Amino acid sequence: MSVTSEVRVRYAETDQMGVVYYSNYLVWFEIGRVELMRSLGMAYSQLEEAYGCILPVAEARCRYRASARYDDMIQIETRPALVRNSMVKFAYKIWRKAFEGEERKLLAEGETTHVVCDKEMNMARLPEKYVTALKALMAEE
Amino acid sequence: MSVTSEVRVRYAETDQMGVVYYSNYLVWFEIGRVELMRSLGMAYSQLEEAYGCILPVAEARCRYRASARYDDMIQIETRPALVRNSMVKFAYKIWRKAFEGEERKLLAEGETTHVVCDKEMNMARLPEKYVTALKALMAEE
Amino acid sequence: MSVTSEVRVRYAETDQMGVVYYSNYLVWFEIGRVELMRSLGMAYSQLEEAYGCILPVAEARCRYRASARYDDMIQIETRPALVRNSMVKFAYKIWRKAFEGEERKLLAEGETTHVVCDKEMNMARLPEKYVTALKALMAEE
Amino acid sequence: MSVTSEVRVRYAETDQMGVVYYSNYLVWFEIGRVELMRSLGMAYSQLEEAYGCILPVAEARCRYRASARYDDMIQIETRPALVRNSMVKFAYKIWRKAFEGEERKLLAEGETTHVVCDKEMNMARLPEKYVTALKALMAEE
Repeated sequence: MSVTSEVRVRYAETDQMGVVYYSNYLVWFEIGRVELMRSLGMAYSQLEEAYGCILPVAEARCRYRASARYDDMIQIETRPALVRNSMVKFAYKIWRKAFEGEERKLLAEGETTHVVCDKEMNMARLPEKYVTALKALMAEE
Repeated sequence: MSVTSEVRVRYAETDQMGVVYYSNYLVWFEIGRVELMRSLGMAYSQLEEAYGCILPVAEARCRYRASARYDDMIQIETRPALVRNSMVKFAYKIWRKAFEGEERKLLAEGETTHVVCDKEMNMARLPEKYVTALKALMAEE
Repeated sequence: MSVTSEVRVRYAETDQMGVVYYSNYLVWFEIGRVELMRSLGMAYSQLEEAYGCILPVAEARCRYRASARYDDMIQIETRPALVRNSMVKFAYKIWRKAFEGEERKLLAEGETTHVVCDKEMNMARLPEKYVTALKALMAEE
Repeated sequence: MSVTSEVRVRYAETDQMGVVYYSNYLVWFEIGRVELMRSLGMAYSQLEEAYGCILPVAEARCRYRASARYDDMIQIETRPALVRNSMVKFAYKIWRKAFEGEERKLLAEGETTHVVCDKEMNMARLPEKYVTALKALMAEE
């Protein structure tokens, strides 16, 4: 199952083509996975503070389908795509929200792969309750 | 053959992990491909103004190997990886520059795929002289 | 009277001091004034499209009182501080939202001054209904 | 006396008005003051690491004169405007570099005020050699 977050496109995120600059989708991905973690009752900031555990990005990928524009309401749909003790992969869909009778439109799709590390960037293991909760979310329809 | 650009890491580019936030590598990729075009005597801004031709990103991908840190001198190595009339693919290597006897270190690798469009985002063809120059660069050792 | 918007601090907005990088407050100011306009039933994007009228920033100022941190819920309080046909000034207060019994905390204060221009950046006049609505908001307690 | 740094405008820095988004000038200010410190043989990163001393911004101000555009070569002219043990103020001029017979053009002016802090954000004193060097620079014609 996926978790959906909403953001509105900021002027700062547009470029001179009049569309959202391509690196900002990775910022939205981050908002998506943070909200996914929060929805499981596990703030990412807590993971960092309480467990000394961070999830640096090992790989990021984005396929751009259509442009996001200033003031668009954006839906970030995030789901865990792979969950192990040592790594987590999230998949994202970025939508322009439906309005005025129009259907919502897929703007981009992507994935990020994260390795589990301690604060010194050594390999670490994701706390068991995070693994369990993420796997449970993944199994839900 | 590749073209190398240099940038110094800005404070604004770091995050609270003390390293460069992951979306900024896509900004560096853009600097790399702009400098590659400029080195061929073809400013990207001219492509946009003179030919009404833009190169929106269809896909971006980055694999992160090691962290870039504040004040690091970064080398962006860019080469054309695929050149057609309708699309161009660039490949990038991001290095921390060698200094004080240390060798330079590979921080990230990635690719961006671009479709050739006119300003209304319809499919278009890359002007022949760009295709030729990019292919020539690709063929060089 | 002021209009309040809320944003949550993004990882991308932090720097290696562990706090929000200082230029991001200006991005928040922009969100504040956009929401203020929207609350008056006048989307900023509509001002640009329907009236060919833009409000470039002539001056921006921010006084930083305390640090915003990752995951903080931020309140952006915006009010019109000066309204003329040729220029508008907004004032902002940035708060960390109250939670768990703590009171909300003032993080920053600032102002932006905007000149009214057409799309060619010539001086222009703000449509009368905008002037009226902004002045009415300013007069409210 | 002032120290001049150069940056080229990035696509990421433009917005849909086709000009550089206003918060980016504060990022350029930061580049300016970092280069000023470096020119005195005192890397800002060293100040943080060796002396545990940071210079958070207490106030930032920018007056915008003309727009910076994509691919413009920008000159950041920075000088110390006030130097005390407990605070430092820098003043900035942002220029579009002269080219093709045109004179360089002033795009923006601004100031940032910094308080000297230790890493716990308590008031601290700037190491004497920094004070001396900054005052010497200020005194030069």
